[in-house]
Amino acid sequence: MNEYLKHDEWCIIEEGFTPENHRASESIFSLGNGNMGQRAMFEEHYSGKSLQGTYVAGVYYPDKTRVGWWKNGYPEYFAKVLNAPNWIGIDVTINGEMLDLAKAKVSDFVRTLNMKEGVLERSFVAEMSNGNQIKVEAKRFLSIVTSEVGVIRYSVTALNCKAKVSFTPYINADVANEDSNYDEKFWDILNTRSIHGEGYVISRTKKLDFHVCMGMKYDVFKAGQKLEIYPSMIEADKYIANTVEFDVEQGEELSIYKYAAVLSSLNHNKLDIMSKTQNVVSEAYKKGYNALLKEHVAAWADKWAHSDITIEGDVAAQQAIRFNIFQLNQTYTGEDERLNIGPKGFTGEKYGGSTYWDTEAYCVPFYLSTSKPEVTRNLLIYRHKQLQKAIENATKLGFTNGAALYPMVTMNGEECHNEWEITFEEIHRNGAIAFAIYNYIRHTGDQKYLEEYGLDVLIGISRFWSQRITFSQAKKKYVMLGVTGPNEYENNINNNWYTSTIANWCLKYTQEAMAHVKETNLNRYNEIIKNLNFNFVKEISKWNDIIENMYYPVDEETGVFLQQEGYMDKEQILAADLDPAVRPINQHWSWDRILRSCFIKQADVLQGIYLFEDQFDLETIKKNYNFYEPRTLHESSLSPCIHSILASKIGDSKGAYDLYLRTSRLDLDDYNKEVHEGLHITSMAGTWMSIVEGFGGMRVVNGKLVLNPLIPEEWKSFSFKVRFRGNLLNVRVSDKEVGVINEEGEDISVFIIDDEYVIEKSSSLVIERD
Amino acid sequence: MNEYLKHDEWCIIEEGFTPENHRASESIFSLGNGNMGQRAMFEEHYSGKSLQGTYVAGVYYPDKTRVGWWKNGYPEYFAKVLNAPNWIGIDVTINGEMLDLAKAKVSDFVRTLNMKEGVLERSFVAEMSNGNQIKVEAKRFLSIVTSEVGVIRYSVTALNCKAKVSFTPYINADVANEDSNYDEKFWDILNTRSIHGEGYVISRTKKLDFHVCMGMKYDVFKAGQKLEIYPSMIEADKYIANTVEFDVEQGEELSIYKYAAVLSSLNHNKLDIMSKTQNVVSEAYKKGYNALLKEHVAAWADKWAHSDITIEGDVAAQQAIRFNIFQLNQTYTGEDERLNIGPKGFTGEKYGGSTYWDTEAYCVPFYLSTSKPEVTRNLLIYRHKQLQKAIENATKLGFTNGAALYPMVTMNGEECHNEWEITFEEIHRNGAIAFAIYNYIRHTGDQKYLEEYGLDVLIGISRFWSQRITFSQAKKKYVMLGVTGPNEYENNINNNWYTSTIANWCLKYTQEAMAHVKETNLNRYNEIIKNLNFNFVKEISKWNDIIENMYYPVDEETGVFLQQEGYMDKEQILAADLDPAVRPINQHWSWDRILRSCFIKQADVLQGIYLFEDQFDLETIKKNYNFYEPRTLHESSLSPCIHSILASKIGDSKGAYDLYLRTSRLDLDDYNKEVHEGLHITSMAGTWMSIVEGFGGMRVVNGKLVLNPLIPEEWKSFSFKVRFRGNLLNVRVSDKEVGVINEEGEDISVFIIDDEYVIEKSSSLVIERD
Repeated sequence: MNEYLKHDEWCIIEEGFTPENHRASESIFSLGNGNMGQRAMFEEHYSGKSLQGTYVAGVYYPDKTRVGWWKNGYPEYFAKVLNAPNWIGIDVTINGEMLDLAKAKVSDFVRTLNMKEGVLERSFVAEMSNGNQIKVEAKRFLSIVTSEVGVIRYSVTALNCKAKVSFTPYINADVANEDSNYDEKFWDILNTRSIHGEGYVISRTKKLDFHVCMGMKYDVFKAGQKLEIYPSMIEADKYIANTVEFDVEQGEELSIYKYAAVLSSLNHNKLDIMSKTQNVVSEAYKKGYNALLKEHVAAWADKWAHSDITIEGDVAAQQAIRFNIFQLNQTYTGEDERLNIGPKGFTGEKYGGSTYWDTEAYCVPFYLSTSKPEVTRNLLIYRHKQLQKAIENATKLGFTNGAALYPMVTMNGEECHNEWEITFEEIHRNGAIAFAIYNYIRHTGDQKYLEEYGLDVLIGISRFWSQRITFSQAKKKYVMLGVTGPNEYENNINNNWYTSTIANWCLKYTQEAMAHVKETNLNRYNEIIKNLNFNFVKEISKWNDIIENMYYPVDEETGVFLQQEGYMDKEQILAADLDPAVRPINQHWSWDRILRSCFIKQADVLQGIYLFEDQFDLETIKKNYNFYEPRTLHESSLSPCIHSILASKIGDSKGAYDLYLRTSRLDLDDYNKEVHEGLHITSMAGTWMSIVEGFGGMRVVNGKLVLNPLIPEEWKSFSFKVRFRGNLLNVRVSDKEVGVINEEGEDISVFIIDDEYVIEKSSSLVIERD
Repeated sequence: MNEYLKHDEWCIIEEGFTPENHRASESIFSLGNGNMGQRAMFEEHYSGKSLQGTYVAGVYYPDKTRVGWWKNGYPEYFAKVLNAPNWIGIDVTINGEMLDLAKAKVSDFVRTLNMKEGVLERSFVAEMSNGNQIKVEAKRFLSIVTSEVGVIRYSVTALNCKAKVSFTPYINADVANEDSNYDEKFWDILNTRSIHGEGYVISRTKKLDFHVCMGMKYDVFKAGQKLEIYPSMIEADKYIANTVEFDVEQGEELSIYKYAAVLSSLNHNKLDIMSKTQNVVSEAYKKGYNALLKEHVAAWADKWAHSDITIEGDVAAQQAIRFNIFQLNQTYTGEDERLNIGPKGFTGEKYGGSTYWDTEAYCVPFYLSTSKPEVTRNLLIYRHKQLQKAIENATKLGFTNGAALYPMVTMNGEECHNEWEITFEEIHRNGAIAFAIYNYIRHTGDQKYLEEYGLDVLIGISRFWSQRITFSQAKKKYVMLGVTGPNEYENNINNNWYTSTIANWCLKYTQEAMAHVKETNLNRYNEIIKNLNFNFVKEISKWNDIIENMYYPVDEETGVFLQQEGYMDKEQILAADLDPAVRPINQHWSWDRILRSCFIKQADVLQGIYLFEDQFDLETIKKNYNFYEPRTLHESSLSPCIHSILASKIGDSKGAYDLYLRTSRLDLDDYNKEVHEGLHITSMAGTWMSIVEGFGGMRVVNGKLVLNPLIPEEWKSFSFKVRFRGNLLNVRVSDKEVGVINEEGEDISVFIIDDEYVIEKSSSLVIERD
């Protein structure tokens, strides 16, 4: 834990400059706009510890696989998020001395992430070694209106002196990934150009040939007056800059407005990318700082209008949930079906690849309720487009007949993770991808999706399961051997209850989906069946045989679903019995010890109960929750939210609240001492779920929205927004009442605490609670 | 398979030069003398494909661990066999043209490894591009009398021309490991010196500071006359050489005798290592080629007198067993307790580290029967000296109270393997180390070893088992969770029958050993108990509780011991059902598929039955053999020998013979297409075992030698030598009779096919077979 940030409802605020926290703050104060993002490094030179990180969506690098002992089937490369050239840089000198917060005496330092407006601000007073004092104010944002544009306003005021102040706005392409093998660099520079008041750099990735062009243009103002500039132009191998210098009187402010454009070959022709960049920069420059900021803030206001959650009476909780929603909205906007959501978004390099099952299992529920259906639909289509790769992936592992195994980690559909116990065995991810289709249709009612994109994905996945599951002569049952469940503290286990459960659900749901398409669009159905060479009689009868004869491990004594066969052979110790000094155990115990222990990294059986809640009575849910929660260490960021939702479900509001705090302030308070590496973006969606599905008790049942709310003692009220099939609802819960405002859309019927109510368009309803 | 070598009883012969086989031949024709070794690369320059490999015993390099995803507990480095400077080089020019078999027209090429004498010979005719024909004869050996000395005789005869012939004998320290990360080099050069007729290079490993000094001195002869030389001396950064040139008439032979010395800081002071090297070279030079060769050949004759096996009627089998014995004797001589036996000996780099459980499980039986007891004793003391490291290793994994886990792979006692499923879980190796102590004492009768070195190792190992085994409340039995057995085609399994069996045997044997020391040397016993802080009541009662209540998986239907819990849930396919195109499966199947299959890489349950044969009746052995052999793929070189022994045991001489051929000609006929990487040295001891323990049926029971021989139909007779407690016996088996000659030692009583016989000193006995 590291609690150095001020609690505030709308802002993240760091007061005072503590270099030890800087890398953590660089993560926490990150900016992004779906198309690009960056850590909150300083504009001016900083020689202290920093992870300079600029990331462009969809641009990645296939780095050579590092492995001690090669296993057949491993991918040749590991696709990683690529640290891109840095365009935010503005070196500053005061009377010839370089401003550097690692060297100056810093006071009155305040860094603020204004989440309402999507703006990063910073101000401080620096005393240089010669005694000159200056005040700096910096403000920057990545436009969510024009997502190739970023803007900085940076000003220096001489406090106790006259000063010669120089600004050197630059673009620097001499960047490396922190995790590169043997310090390899991943960019070649194709072209640099530094002209009067402008500069451009085109760089190309050494593999895959992505081109990125960055451009900048700037103005300098003194006391509100735009100045004529006479820059010296610098053009080095991988770097362009302008330097301008002015005399500033004591008390006078000199400010620079830097307009930058970042264009990539994902969206532009490589041949004219520089001139396109010039156009984008020039338009931003013409529009000007204030107009750009205004439209940006307005767009954020619209985002908040559809996704905000309020919590009354608990500022820490309020700040945390807004931080989670803000970062999700910065990471993925859903406009580009080629993109997805990396576990660290634009805030760090760890975990490399962009897409994990996190997207389907955690992010989809968030975007379904807070964005237009197209956003989730694009996430689904991303997987649809990668179906062929998933089939190739399964083929590599020995599967046939169009069986599809989606990768554990990917950029373009190819697997790029290389631990056999994960890559080859953590196959439950396939189930999450099928479930997301079901979930999308359940929420939006868009049944058409099945015939358009969904059905072939479902069939590929079900074919995989039907081959992966084998018949045990010993048990006279179908078994699934050699898997890793969501709880990665078990590897190569047999009959993981979660994986077997979701696999069987896939086999059932695919049949329902087939029946639906057959009924509603027979031609399309026949076309799909023919394209996939689907042998209905043979394949379906195998599926049904599996469904009827699957083996699920259950503890005979208690009736608890067993995480895997043999789980009860372990020594049954509880998390509470563990010496806190050995937690997280993955930093203290060797892997075999973790594997032998009964300790659970993240929800596993409970993940299954969460997904298929309607199949279990409350008693069963309670029994399993009470068995597994004390054995779960929540050493994955994806874990506490699921437990929190189930705690709400069984009415344990104290447990639900504790787990909520753990998930929502995970990064702000650095629970796991790793925030300096970047934020846990995908688990932030889980935080949202623990409020809306947990405390809010929101479900979709038979096409209707259901609310069964609960409120933690600590809160006076909370509210959240839900988009549901053309409506935008604002749900407010206090211990006395539940209110729903039908903000957008027609009349809607909603179940609240077991009763059905119709809420007319543009009106609201308040239910008294018992 | 690649069968290009001629069958011969004493020699390995390659006729005709086929560049595609050169790397394989470099492995097969390797030379070694326990202190150093080298692949059979050419003396003269060769620009074709080659793995230049020179290795100095005990000199290794701790290379940076390569791993994609770090697990807590992994070692920081991977110790690897280090390719050392090359001292065999002699560049040759003919009329200014460099001799290079990749470029010349080669005829009459013969390469011979004379195993009787320990000499590598080569002769060929080369036609240079200008039409000059020369004949080359090369002969070299690494003295097993003076193990720091190697000698080469290299001669050139001008066949169709007069020629200016130059020799450039050199030492080249600009060498790399083939498997180095990013082509890093591992040697720094400290000093080079090239003088008239001599040269020296001292190099130092970049880590661990091993120093190796190599020196050379040479003579040149023409037509039997020693020539005055006027060399040009070359001294480069990492290279020293002399060049001498002479006119040779047609038909005349020019020959060079190169004497080399290789000294390492393991055995010499770093400060005067060069002058020491000069001394060693000078002495060899003074003694001269013929005298050095003579004593070397005599020493080999002595080795053969104690370790030879003859097979009458099957040249391929005869050649193969001699090749196996020869390579073992080249690799390890047992004089230095700091050394051990790497899986590839001095023939390649693969597998890096020097010591695996191979030593105890395979090599110990060989050395026990063919060498003085001190040789095996030194192998045992090697582990004794590493006990503290084994305790540290176990501590890292969370064990306490002096529990010892010996490493999977090591150079100096520290673990240097980094796959969690092996490093942390393939713990049966600990049992092999205990068993080797038992085996050594059983064979030699040296009970004193227990109090001197054995008991603390046994207690450390038993303490490990008693903590590693846990109690299952569900089973009300002790279980061993999360292990990898000898069959590495299963990972992280529960209740591996072999591991549980050997662990429990350790707990019993340690108690017997303690009782023996207590009875024979109470003071020493008390000292050990005190030093180890051994709580007799508590620890022993835990051990006995485990012994009495251990869970062993058994198939209820057949009574077969199950390799692990759940083995019968797998699809039961047989090796014979596999498409040969997918074998070896580890080159064709992904790892998860291998793990899920019932296929067995190497003896596992059968390894246990082999070790503890006396605990099982013949019916049980047969039942298990018949179950497991059809499921075993023998994709480890260590596997077929064990199955061969058990096949002999149950009287299946056809099966035993097929398996024998597979193990004995594994490298000569390149069964697994990998001999170019080096030889399978440790499994060669298994080949020996499959004759002596398999066909010979040799056992030690109650301190007596027992022979129950069987002979394959293909053989007329076979014979082997056995050292046993002061006797050297020569056992000869034909289908008619069994003969034993008591070659050395006093009268001895031996059991032959169930009856006891006394064979008087220097006499023999022949038993007619039924």
